[in-house]
Amino acid sequence: MVSTIKVYEKPVLQDPVLIEGLPGIGFVANIVALHLIQELKAKLFAEVRLSSFQDIAITANDGKVLFPTNEFYYYKGRNEEEQDLIILYGNTQALTTVGQYELCGRALDLAKEYGCRLVITLGGFRQDKKASVPPRLYCAASDYATLKEALVLGAEIIEGQIFGVAGLLIGLCKLWNMRGFCLLGETQGFYPDASAAHEVLHALRQMLHLNVDMSRLETAVEATREILRSFGIQSQPPEEKTNEPSYRWHV
Amino acid sequence: MVSTIKVYEKPVLQDPVLIEGLPGIGFVANIVALHLIQELKAKLFAEVRLSSFQDIAITANDGKVLFPTNEFYYYKGRNEEEQDLIILYGNTQALTTVGQYELCGRALDLAKEYGCRLVITLGGFRQDKKASVPPRLYCAASDYATLKEALVLGAEIIEGQIFGVAGLLIGLCKLWNMRGFCLLGETQGFYPDASAAHEVLHALRQMLHLNVDMSRLETAVEATREILRSFGIQSQPPEEKTNEPSYRWHV
Amino acid sequence: MVSTIKVYEKPVLQDPVLIEGLPGIGFVANIVALHLIQELKAKLFAEVRLSSFQDIAITANDGKVLFPTNEFYYYKGRNEEEQDLIILYGNTQALTTVGQYELCGRALDLAKEYGCRLVITLGGFRQDKKASVPPRLYCAASDYATLKEALVLGAEIIEGQIFGVAGLLIGLCKLWNMRGFCLLGETQGFYPDASAAHEVLHALRQMLHLNVDMSRLETAVEATREILRSFGIQSQPPEEKTNEPSYRWHV
Amino acid sequence: MVSTIKVYEKPVLQDPVLIEGLPGIGFVANIVALHLIQELKAKLFAEVRLSSFQDIAITANDGKVLFPTNEFYYYKGRNEEEQDLIILYGNTQALTTVGQYELCGRALDLAKEYGCRLVITLGGFRQDKKASVPPRLYCAASDYATLKEALVLGAEIIEGQIFGVAGLLIGLCKLWNMRGFCLLGETQGFYPDASAAHEVLHALRQMLHLNVDMSRLETAVEATREILRSFGIQSQPPEEKTNEPSYRWHV
Repeated sequence: MVSTIKVYEKPVLQDPVLIEGLPGIGFVANIVALHLIQELKAKLFAEVRLSSFQDIAITANDGKVLFPTNEFYYYKGRNEEEQDLIILYGNTQALTTVGQYELCGRALDLAKEYGCRLVITLGGFRQDKKASVPPRLYCAASDYATLKEALVLGAEIIEGQIFGVAGLLIGLCKLWNMRGFCLLGETQGFYPDASAAHEVLHALRQMLHLNVDMSRLETAVEATREILRSFGIQSQPPEEKTNEPSYRWHV
Repeated sequence: MVSTIKVYEKPVLQDPVLIEGLPGIGFVANIVALHLIQELKAKLFAEVRLSSFQDIAITANDGKVLFPTNEFYYYKGRNEEEQDLIILYGNTQALTTVGQYELCGRALDLAKEYGCRLVITLGGFRQDKKASVPPRLYCAASDYATLKEALVLGAEIIEGQIFGVAGLLIGLCKLWNMRGFCLLGETQGFYPDASAAHEVLHALRQMLHLNVDMSRLETAVEATREILRSFGIQSQPPEEKTNEPSYRWHV
Repeated sequence: MVSTIKVYEKPVLQDPVLIEGLPGIGFVANIVALHLIQELKAKLFAEVRLSSFQDIAITANDGKVLFPTNEFYYYKGRNEEEQDLIILYGNTQALTTVGQYELCGRALDLAKEYGCRLVITLGGFRQDKKASVPPRLYCAASDYATLKEALVLGAEIIEGQIFGVAGLLIGLCKLWNMRGFCLLGETQGFYPDASAAHEVLHALRQMLHLNVDMSRLETAVEATREILRSFGIQSQPPEEKTNEPSYRWHV
Repeated sequence: MVSTIKVYEKPVLQDPVLIEGLPGIGFVANIVALHLIQELKAKLFAEVRLSSFQDIAITANDGKVLFPTNEFYYYKGRNEEEQDLIILYGNTQALTTVGQYELCGRALDLAKEYGCRLVITLGGFRQDKKASVPPRLYCAASDYATLKEALVLGAEIIEGQIFGVAGLLIGLCKLWNMRGFCLLGETQGFYPDASAAHEVLHALRQMLHLNVDMSRLETAVEATREILRSFGIQSQPPEEKTNEPSYRWHV
């Protein structure tokens, strides 16, 4: 098995947007995705395991076994303005480059099956200096038309490299006939970075006309912090910047 | 060839339980599986080779060539109480993470083909301190209902990580619509650890209502010790704890 | 996905020659291929992504996202003398040996589909000493008949090893029933090496009876230099010879 | 492409024996296989390339390009006593474990297609001490019946490990319903080792009732030596024992 996908439900979606929210810099994407899932009551409909995830199981203190996984949730817009969503959420990215491509290929295959034409990837954009208040937004896009939509949100053009699934999905989506768009919040990379997540969520809400309450964002931040803690990863004070853990978990 | 499976026989089984007994910490799973095969006269019906096993052959002193392999044995319960079993036994796990996933995928595919709905993985749970007398049992499960069944046996909930096939099978089985359950015996990791194996076998016997004599367990321990010895691996006295060999053989 | 190919158009070609122009020593092949594409107004018709490319996106200063890719262009000869061409151009080779084989296999499959029977790979042949003026040409071929054609151009026989796609395509093409031919220009490996590219282009033009103006070659050199610069790779003065960057980009 | 096979001819063979003669310790198998091909005028009928061979081309001083390859030759026995043969000859083994399995799988698939039921692998068995005069023979087999046939030839049972394709083919052949047999000549590993090759060839000739003149064995030894030399590998005097080159070529 290179990868195995388990489909729990086959929703009927209209022109859904794929939102990527896997663990990464500052856990920005992870927080935003979790918040969207909780607030929109998005529903799990598929799950994917890759042979390039770690071969491990971790027991939470309630005895249940956790394991590396990526999940797909869907949300059907409640009115004409809101778009249907597919949210990619998980506790890990793939451990190898080959695995990252496999993961992105799987996600794009699945999204295409449901009629997706736009991919939005989220993340933190690491800056060495202290983040602005509020943190600045950065964007990049697969084409100029899409880029313009992002610039309207007040985001600046990224100059640099976008690592991992956030960059790869944007790079690959053209081959699936999709447009891609990457939205990153300025961060020093401390995790979980609530401020950067707030800014990214705010812009995403505007862009997709989503009616999402932001007041409970701290719940998702705390849940992410709790997950990290239960796996022995401490949240960091702003004073000591360290590297991200190369591998990340959630409940 | 990523993997090749050779099927010698296609038994008709009723709701069989897959028991994993590959080499690992303290060789606990290996001993228990070998004992079950010997006592129950379980029958070899399939064999799998992976390209992520080592590319080597070893000659025993009788000139026969041994090689890395994983075997599947079946046992048909002799009465209504005893369940049918599929026992996964072998002399190695895969050498890479990708190979471990491939191995587990193959095992679950095969088990599902015979109607399996429950996977039980065995092993040692390494503790730095001297093991209790008798060694304690630890468990983890893919879901709460299964976990409860294990706790009844007197096992405690594992807090930590379960490496290798023992953890991975439990993590993956949900995608094959199976329930999973992991049973580990406390061990300092000396091999082969007869005491830990004894405790695990005892619990397994209760759980599956297996009518297995335990008096000859030492035979399986000695066979395992002999195998290790013939490959240049010495059993260890409790005084000096060392790491497991990364690669393990049997006849 | 091991590799994904996106076909934009299916041209009808007659006995086309596959010309390989991926980044390599002195960026010789890259410059020549880019020049041919520009001068001949060759048309993009297919694009390939491999899981053994890097998992990264890079933003140019106009905000558009760039990513590792290999592209196929075609050119239909304008008269009876000129041959139809398929030009393989890109900003990277694969990162692993296995990936290089996958890439070459894909390219040969595609070329064969359009009736290709001859593969010409280009590149720089690194010499420690200062290159001759003009730089010497070196060649190698899959068979003697093809080799003779090359020697007529004034090229000398290579003595040594040809690394990467330039060598591999020649080595593999026989299995696709094609003849292969490798043409390298003497270079100290400084990049982009305009002189070596000039000599290779000159010979290629003769061999294929291509009516290509060479006066604008500097445009392709400058474009290649600009690409390197925008990715933080400085062109080198002849005084300090360094290693090639292991990974190379273009717009 | 994981592997590509090119079939030049489909001979009709009767119960052919697969003889493996790839580069290895002392180049014993390589010499014997080349001698058999030359003496028996065995005919090339298939060729295989793996993505786990090196991605390189090497030019001989006649300008022809050489590349890593494995070839299959066939020989039809000239009388009732002589058996039909399939000889696996080449200039490299695979670079990775996964590749070795792929290679063996391919070879066994092909051999089975022609009705092969017996695999004989050849090689050198490295001893630290000076080899006996004549060098001793060692053997191992997939089963006892086959082992007995080998012991009749005067070979001793190997005690130890057989690395690479020579061991792997014997280990895997059972899954293709074949019997396997390994014949190694005592060597200090100097290459090419003519004496060890002589002993192995002698035994093989007896076993298969092959009518092969051995007087020209030195021709194959010299050819192998020449190949090594042209790739910068010097034959070694018995005084200084070194490691085998990890990668080996022939014309």
